[in-house]
Amino acid sequence: MPNFSATDDFSKISNCQIICLCVPTPIDKNKKPNLGILEKALRNVSSYLAPGTLVVLESSVAPGTTRNFVLPILEKSPLIAGSDFFLAFSPERIDPANTKFTVKNTPKVVSGVEENSQNLVYQFYKSFVDQVVVVATCEVAEMTKVLENTFRLVNISLVNEIAAFCQEAQIDTWEVIKAASTKPYGFLAHYPGPGAGGDCIPVLPYYLLDSADKLEIPLRVVKAAARVNEIQPHIVVNKAVEVINGKFTKNGHNPKIFLIGISYKEETSDIRHSPALEIWHKLKSKGMAISYHDPYIPKFNGSMSERITKDTLADHDLIIITTAHKDVPYEKIVNSSRPIIDTKNVLSDYRQSHIIRL
Amino acid sequence: MPNFSATDDFSKISNCQIICLCVPTPIDKNKKPNLGILEKALRNVSSYLAPGTLVVLESSVAPGTTRNFVLPILEKSPLIAGSDFFLAFSPERIDPANTKFTVKNTPKVVSGVEENSQNLVYQFYKSFVDQVVVVATCEVAEMTKVLENTFRLVNISLVNEIAAFCQEAQIDTWEVIKAASTKPYGFLAHYPGPGAGGDCIPVLPYYLLDSADKLEIPLRVVKAAARVNEIQPHIVVNKAVEVINGKFTKNGHNPKIFLIGISYKEETSDIRHSPALEIWHKLKSKGMAISYHDPYIPKFNGSMSERITKDTLADHDLIIITTAHKDVPYEKIVNSSRPIIDTKNVLSDYRQSHIIRL
Repeated sequence: MPNFSATDDFSKISNCQIICLCVPTPIDKNKKPNLGILEKALRNVSSYLAPGTLVVLESSVAPGTTRNFVLPILEKSPLIAGSDFFLAFSPERIDPANTKFTVKNTPKVVSGVEENSQNLVYQFYKSFVDQVVVVATCEVAEMTKVLENTFRLVNISLVNEIAAFCQEAQIDTWEVIKAASTKPYGFLAHYPGPGAGGDCIPVLPYYLLDSADKLEIPLRVVKAAARVNEIQPHIVVNKAVEVINGKFTKNGHNPKIFLIGISYKEETSDIRHSPALEIWHKLKSKGMAISYHDPYIPKFNGSMSERITKDTLADHDLIIITTAHKDVPYEKIVNSSRPIIDTKNVLSDYRQSHIIRL
Repeated sequence: MPNFSATDDFSKISNCQIICLCVPTPIDKNKKPNLGILEKALRNVSSYLAPGTLVVLESSVAPGTTRNFVLPILEKSPLIAGSDFFLAFSPERIDPANTKFTVKNTPKVVSGVEENSQNLVYQFYKSFVDQVVVVATCEVAEMTKVLENTFRLVNISLVNEIAAFCQEAQIDTWEVIKAASTKPYGFLAHYPGPGAGGDCIPVLPYYLLDSADKLEIPLRVVKAAARVNEIQPHIVVNKAVEVINGKFTKNGHNPKIFLIGISYKEETSDIRHSPALEIWHKLKSKGMAISYHDPYIPKFNGSMSERITKDTLADHDLIIITTAHKDVPYEKIVNSSRPIIDTKNVLSDYRQSHIIRL
């Protein structure tokens, strides 16, 4: 790839015509937006910004960030947006491990802080994306991503609390979702799990909540959904404690838990905001010994991904399936007859009583 | 239609082979399930139930109702379910005014309280519905409808609170939704309005909340969504009061409000749980005089649907579009230059400053 090279030398920016900023925009411990990384990147960009450059922010941010946060930092350079340099926002739309929708065939929403920036950002993405959707303002583009992520969080949290209800009512949640999915309009299936993870879905809604707080707009549904997602890993932990405190405890040993999959999503190695790690942490703090298997993550936090053998399985008091990776010998896991909490319904074909579903 | 006749003579039930119960299952003033109408219908059915009859409940109910509420009432007759008579549940899936999806081409979810009932209910619907989806238990079928309606309520409430945020942040909600809809996966558009109405969406989630309360399962997202939907008409009322208290008040007169559309949904005359009526009631209690126009509802509660003329429009201090009926002369309404609150974005083509959007 002659046109591609990686560097941490910001001075190279002065030779660039287009700069895409995709730096993380995380939340802090209090779930408040932390734009520190973005600010640092912008200050570096600003120092080397050459005339005529198009700067595109792709990071997920609260509406207004491009205009009110990014623009003032870049305009501290002697250049003026719209004539000397150009500024636009276009949110990432990536579904990791999705092989059907790629950068090329996923419509890309764009907007500029003024008309010249708008035209340039359209031309840039149009050169390699099939459909570029120009919206009126950067705020609309920013809010589009916020809505998409919030929609996901709300619906995942909804189905997780529905699953909790169904379990108590002894109704098969997964069959209910499958039946509802036969409705040809007005329904979109979401599935229960240990909680929504990753860098977007459990993060961006807090940017929205922070903005809404400032405008004194109550967002009851979003707030409830965020709360449900925060406590979802605890539901798995509580189930684990229930199992361990029951007939399966080995006297004189710390209970041993085997986590299958620790990434936040199947077929990726991404562990950001992974509910599996939250579960790990909570179980460990309750005195349990944790090991894990993840085909995508050979090492984590001083532990190694353990091979799934008859002996390894027999050595554990409880197995928790936290990620639905395909390349895992599930049949072997079932045959071990160890108690299993299957948070992802990957064992739907098995009906043994030692399998506990969410 | 030789096979169809209407009657209120329950004794005719003794000549029927199949009885579908589609009676209302409303909520009372405290938002608690009220099965009184269903119970009365069942007692009448029970009195005349002939051997071999299939009884199908189509009313929306909490999971467990067919087995734990309907079955005991019918078994008080000398007949036993599964041999002497048959009992099944199949939820209504109707989108009023939807011309694309009819009873025939909308998959129908069914289940029986035991195998014979299951087989019969499948055969019955299969005779006139393209796809009949048999699920394991009546509880799954009941819960399917609960999930479908709850999904709708939650997503309508979500978009309504997002719209409140966007309005305060001066972002065009409708453009945001349009842009998000270009995402080819993981998003389903819902639109702001004066609140979800009708007999299903704002009702059935309260059946779920009641059941969940009994099982001590907190449903934070559903509860928040129900609350947002309850207060949504008030948001419209508050906007109306804001407009009326401003420059448009005529001294010495009660402010006159013109509601355009009072049914809960476009192209129907159904006023059950219509947010327009809630808005009507609230505005009236604030001393405003209400008139309305609805092409589907010529008379309501002692009022007549008023014709939309230049004079009628000029006679009002504020026009509120509460239903998006197609057959309304919107251009005439806009040209009246009276202030308009457009809760349904039917005036999206007009940008005049006297049009206030939600």
